[in-house]
Order: sequence, then C-alpha cells, then structure tokens
Amino acid sequence: MTLFEARIEITHRPGILDPQGANVERALPALGYQNVRDVRVGKSIRLVLDAPDAETAAAQVEEMCHRLLANPVIEHYAVELMAIAAEPAEASAR
Amino acid sequence: MTLFEARIEITHRPGILDPQGANVERALPALGYQNVRDVRVGKSIRLVLDAPDAETAAAQVEEMCHRLLANPVIEHYAVELMAIAAEPAEASAR
Repeated sequence: MTLFEARIEITHRPGILDPQGANVERALPALGYQNVRDVRVGKSIRLVLDAPDAETAAAQVEEMCHRLLANPVIEHYAVELMAIAAEPAEASAR
Repeated sequence: MTLFEARIEITHRPGILDPQGANVERALPALGYQNVRDVRVGKSIRLVLDAPDAETAAAQVEEMCHRLLANPVIEHYAVELMAIAAEPAEASAR
C-alpha cells in the first residue's frame, strides 16, 4: 500500500453566485488594491489515504468528492494526488 | 502590465482546531472509506491581478493575504502565481 496526499480544490461552477468572492472583491479596492478582479472563494481540502496504486487512490478521491465533499450540482472539483510514502506490505503498519 | 492569476490556499496552522476537517474525517468511514486520515478543510481563493512583474504581483498578494484574506494568527497561506497574459501598455510587454 502507498500513502497518497490528495489536494482537492472545490470551486463554484461558472454562473453560480459566489457571495464570499464578491465581498472580497469589493473590499480590496478600499484597501488600495485597484488592480484585482475575478475573485473566487472556494474550499481546499487535503487528506491522506492509503491505496494500492495511484489509479485506485484517484478513483476513490473522485468518488468522495462526488458523494460527500462537493455538491456536484453547483460545485466543481479538481484533485491533485501526490505519493508521499510507500508502506511495506507484509509489515503493513497502521 | 501583465495579468497574473493567483491561487491562494489558506489552511489552519498546526495545533489550531479544524472542526470541519474533523467532521469530514468522521463521516468518511461511515461511507466505506476506512483508509483516509488527516483531513483538513481550508479555503482556496483565486484572483486575477494586473502587475508590472511577477515580484510585484507576489508581494501584493502576500500583503492582501496578511491584511484581509487570512488571519495570520491562526491561519497559514500559500500562494501560487501564474502569468496568464501580457497586456500591451504602449507595447511594453514584459
């Protein structure tokens, strides 16, 4: 089994209102940043999972996003996966 | 001036409680994912800014994070910057 770290970015789908982003975009010019636009605020989720290979890990994370982490009707998600350690099977710790 | 897209990941500092992450971590095994741990939920902010060069853009985004986007006492932020387009000022593309 290999340990993977997944970094998931969850953003609003285009056309879905992003009130947090709009607020930040309104606040920035008042602080002197006139050169900023298109602010979007989403979620960033990181988790560690144990899987036999990268394909299995990616499929599982995808499924978790769809079932629990994101709302696929209004949110879009992107997953990045990094192998962080190979665990010795036989002496499969944890 | 060049257009940059900044991707900012805001996470809790180590030792700061992350109740959202803890909730997700508790929910996943009930859905059949026993192999997941270390779930952390943070914010992901994307914005577009106009700056003369990458150094200026990076310094500005850093400052925005510190002043508005993150709470540096309990949150940690990481910034990735991508040039997305050079805007012709006179024609001084960088």
